[in-house]
Amino acid sequence: MSHAHGYAALSGDQALAPFSFERREPGPNDVKIEILYCGVCHSDLHTARNEWNNTLFPSVPGHEIVGRVSAVGSAVTGFKVGQMAGVGCIVDSCRTCASCSDGEEQYCENGFTGTYNGSIFGGSHNTYGGYSDQIVVDEKYMLRISHDEAQLAAVAPLLCAGITTYSPLAHWKVGPGQKVGVVGLGGLGHMAVKIAKAMGADVVLFTTSANKRDDARRLGASEVVVSRDADQMAAQAGQLDFIVNTVAAPHDLDALLATLKRDGTMVLVGAPATPHPSPNVFNLILKRRSLAGSLIGGIRETQEMLDFCARHGIVSDIEMIRMDEINEAYERMLKGDVKYRFVIDMATLGAAE
Amino acid sequence: MSHAHGYAALSGDQALAPFSFERREPGPNDVKIEILYCGVCHSDLHTARNEWNNTLFPSVPGHEIVGRVSAVGSAVTGFKVGQMAGVGCIVDSCRTCASCSDGEEQYCENGFTGTYNGSIFGGSHNTYGGYSDQIVVDEKYMLRISHDEAQLAAVAPLLCAGITTYSPLAHWKVGPGQKVGVVGLGGLGHMAVKIAKAMGADVVLFTTSANKRDDARRLGASEVVVSRDADQMAAQAGQLDFIVNTVAAPHDLDALLATLKRDGTMVLVGAPATPHPSPNVFNLILKRRSLAGSLIGGIRETQEMLDFCARHGIVSDIEMIRMDEINEAYERMLKGDVKYRFVIDMATLGAAE
Repeated sequence: MSHAHGYAALSGDQALAPFSFERREPGPNDVKIEILYCGVCHSDLHTARNEWNNTLFPSVPGHEIVGRVSAVGSAVTGFKVGQMAGVGCIVDSCRTCASCSDGEEQYCENGFTGTYNGSIFGGSHNTYGGYSDQIVVDEKYMLRISHDEAQLAAVAPLLCAGITTYSPLAHWKVGPGQKVGVVGLGGLGHMAVKIAKAMGADVVLFTTSANKRDDARRLGASEVVVSRDADQMAAQAGQLDFIVNTVAAPHDLDALLATLKRDGTMVLVGAPATPHPSPNVFNLILKRRSLAGSLIGGIRETQEMLDFCARHGIVSDIEMIRMDEINEAYERMLKGDVKYRFVIDMATLGAAE
Repeated sequence: MSHAHGYAALSGDQALAPFSFERREPGPNDVKIEILYCGVCHSDLHTARNEWNNTLFPSVPGHEIVGRVSAVGSAVTGFKVGQMAGVGCIVDSCRTCASCSDGEEQYCENGFTGTYNGSIFGGSHNTYGGYSDQIVVDEKYMLRISHDEAQLAAVAPLLCAGITTYSPLAHWKVGPGQKVGVVGLGGLGHMAVKIAKAMGADVVLFTTSANKRDDARRLGASEVVVSRDADQMAAQAGQLDFIVNTVAAPHDLDALLATLKRDGTMVLVGAPATPHPSPNVFNLILKRRSLAGSLIGGIRETQEMLDFCARHGIVSDIEMIRMDEINEAYERMLKGDVKYRFVIDMATLGAAE
């Protein structure tokens, strides 16, 4: 075992604070990385505060992890000491079910092991995430990063916000000639705009905030629709091939479904704490539309997304914070006060202790 | 014009009664048929009683029409006098929009002309349906029937109940090796069981009535699940590739969505008068499931369905009624007292007048 340092919540009602714990020594198939940056996802906040009533404490959040390889096991073939590498939301899965066999570990039928708050297969140990100085992960669940080193901090959010939006866009085969809607311009939405644009689609951003118009266009949207404006919504009726809806707050799905063409699909990547108003079935029937859901992405697809983003020069728009600013960052996230993802500079961890 | 006879509702609160009206003479592209049988669809009842508040009176319902060609226009190439032929829910459409160009006239972006209660393109005339002795329809919207003549009455319900279930089963590519759910064993559900089985799927019928078990098996279901039995539902969790849900009454979609595998789709072909309880988004996200809708089928696909059913010996299970029994039949339909479709013997029309 080796000593690791990080930030943890000890209970749902306590702020995150410095925390020391043990990581396993790398086994034959393991890669150890020194964490340089870790993105801050809304799930981190929900978990740290036990808002889903399933948190194992102490809880070390963080699943948008990038760093440098510091050790590799004897059987590791894909990684070398000194290389950049990343870890996303998944550090293990059963490897035998149909979904794992298909490389869709996010749908592992025996439940994948989350990077934090996960049960390790064959044990009851709680996994600790990326708000820490190091992590040890089987190379099968470790990602290669081919971006410029200077972009590394802004690559971190690709490991969750990026893959969560890339996966449905790729699965439903978004491409040139298509008009694609993105609902919400937050951490996920701003990635969806960039990725859908890079895939060749014409991107329409739906937002409740008219003041996001300029930013949306800068990020790649060709149209911005204020979803509370019935006339703007009506002008989009039957126009879109596909929609990625990143908004988790309950909202009217019908107005958005009505913007889809025949055979169009709207994919929800956020789940509301209380249900959305029930969608009108006529909206589905009269154009053979679909309402679907999608969960992050598998390891193979996450690698594909990282390579795609490197080729297209895509990273996240970030605001860098110090580790000891995390509790304040959570408060700002709740107000939507971040453009568009906080990333922790892990070099500040030592100073914070 | 030629004199036609039928049964009509003169207002939403009046019973259907004998009614005389005019049909156009066949134009160059028209086919005229003597109607021999007409199936009775729930939409007929909703329309006759103005339950959707959109009925044009007088209303002659009926869109499951079969008969014999009695005249053809000079330019008609596909039909000859004396042949069997059928008319379904659509008698015209704009023929120019993307959906019409794709042969999906049911999604015509300018609104298809319904066989009854439809506005005729370029005019305000209300279309009159199949509760009548004859009908004149452009050959592009007329269907060929290759079943045995003795089966003709039982072919009629294929024109709506058959195509409404065939279309989603074909569109979502149901076939051998798949486990397919059918929800509800009424006019639509019993056709879905027969068709999915003939497509090679293993069919699971979901019903609230345990007493439908034997009938469901006779029709082709290999399993019957009583959807109010939580244990039986749990045993199906994650098992199904696809579901056709024919139940229009509001019900719990989550319990059914949970029976789908990863990437499974449940298609709704009935729309409830009041919304279903809002589906749980986690049920969609955690297995990338879809909830979709589907509307009848286009003309090309309706022909494909008729040919498929003829090849596989599929017809509807019917109960034949006299024209003057239609009002009583509506009352029995409301009680679910029909196995599984009423068909009017149009030879009784003269006697009824």
